[in-house]
Amino acid sequence: MSKIVVLHSGGLDSSTLLGTFLQTTPPSEILTLSILYGQKHDREVYAAERISEFYHVEHEVFRIPSPVFQVRSEEGTPSSLTDDAEMPHQTYDELSTSVGVSPTYVPFRNGNLISIATSICLAYGGGIVATGVHAEDSRNWAYPDCTPEFIGGMQNAIYVGTYHRVRLVAPFQYMMKSDIVRLGLILKVPYEKTWSCYEGGDSPCGECPTCIERLEAFRVNGATDPVSYRRTNV
Amino acid sequence: MSKIVVLHSGGLDSSTLLGTFLQTTPPSEILTLSILYGQKHDREVYAAERISEFYHVEHEVFRIPSPVFQVRSEEGTPSSLTDDAEMPHQTYDELSTSVGVSPTYVPFRNGNLISIATSICLAYGGGIVATGVHAEDSRNWAYPDCTPEFIGGMQNAIYVGTYHRVRLVAPFQYMMKSDIVRLGLILKVPYEKTWSCYEGGDSPCGECPTCIERLEAFRVNGATDPVSYRRTNV
Repeated sequence: MSKIVVLHSGGLDSSTLLGTFLQTTPPSEILTLSILYGQKHDREVYAAERISEFYHVEHEVFRIPSPVFQVRSEEGTPSSLTDDAEMPHQTYDELSTSVGVSPTYVPFRNGNLISIATSICLAYGGGIVATGVHAEDSRNWAYPDCTPEFIGGMQNAIYVGTYHRVRLVAPFQYMMKSDIVRLGLILKVPYEKTWSCYEGGDSPCGECPTCIERLEAFRVNGATDPVSYRRTNV
Repeated sequence: MSKIVVLHSGGLDSSTLLGTFLQTTPPSEILTLSILYGQKHDREVYAAERISEFYHVEHEVFRIPSPVFQVRSEEGTPSSLTDDAEMPHQTYDELSTSVGVSPTYVPFRNGNLISIATSICLAYGGGIVATGVHAEDSRNWAYPDCTPEFIGGMQNAIYVGTYHRVRLVAPFQYMMKSDIVRLGLILKVPYEKTWSCYEGGDSPCGECPTCIERLEAFRVNGATDPVSYRRTNV
């Protein structure tokens, strides 16, 4: 038995990725994997749990001890996802033109997440590791560990480094978020159960980069985001 | 301040790598990193601690929850380093011709170790991640996650995925273990403090693949391994 291990944040992209695999694969061959790495918005893991239940897919949560991602010197790379820095209220494009390193970048997070998923996939005999990274993640170096160049390096390392037993796939890497929403609406992905916001709390803020991007993706499709935002004028 | 993060198992290769960097770099710019991942021979971490002390280098131990590397199905990839399987008493070459997947391979371990080291390096602002993998690790696919092809993929992923802030280096990747010992003897690396054996216990077994390889590397150099083996006729 081989496994498809879907890295599942509980957000829109990885939920659509899961819905896409389920078009052709029985739920028993899929494992969703969520990682707690010290993110403020750890409630995304509960969203992932609910979505996995909805799809009857086994869900696993893995915890990375948070010191790995915490800044250790003045020159270190901080992240507003894991430290005390204020969350920016800008779009990814605005952020990318105003700063060198995106304040929401978590240092080489995806290298770690993908490597853990690869080891777990091998524990089942191998198969596929899938990530929902997309073109807006990589645009303007918002997230360098989401770029096709990063994915390509990891694909080579994983294919060679697992005796060719595991392949890394990133089916959305050249798609915009609005393309993903278009696909997900057709597949009836339960977007009301997803959590994208970088802030914690009971409802998404509507102001952080990922909330802005998500709202725009629904708007482009002439659709309404089914989740309720803290800001009421979105 | 940038950091050189040396992945340090406490064994011969990574100790020589550390000694090599210290020829040109002050100890304060180096961090040694050991990982507990469920290996039976976790005493190697104490060896790493002693060697780091000897060199006045900061040493850090990171624990990966062990389920990551444990087999989950009949087709899964087991490892005699982390599970109940008996340790083979053969050379790496004998193992590689008799089996497909080396019984001492830990599923994509090095992808995980290198990714953790990369995140920690970024926490200091970036620099270098160094691994002591060598040509006998990769020969005949003993360890596919030690091959130049694996390292090349990871190098690309890391350089791109960290905003060009971290480089992965593997200075010994085309050297035999005897070449490493030759270098280490010149540099007076404290080999008496190292631990290479895959078995636990008070003294190295002298019979597992890594003990056999190590003894041969000293023999080729006309030198005597300073550690005492359990087998007295080595």
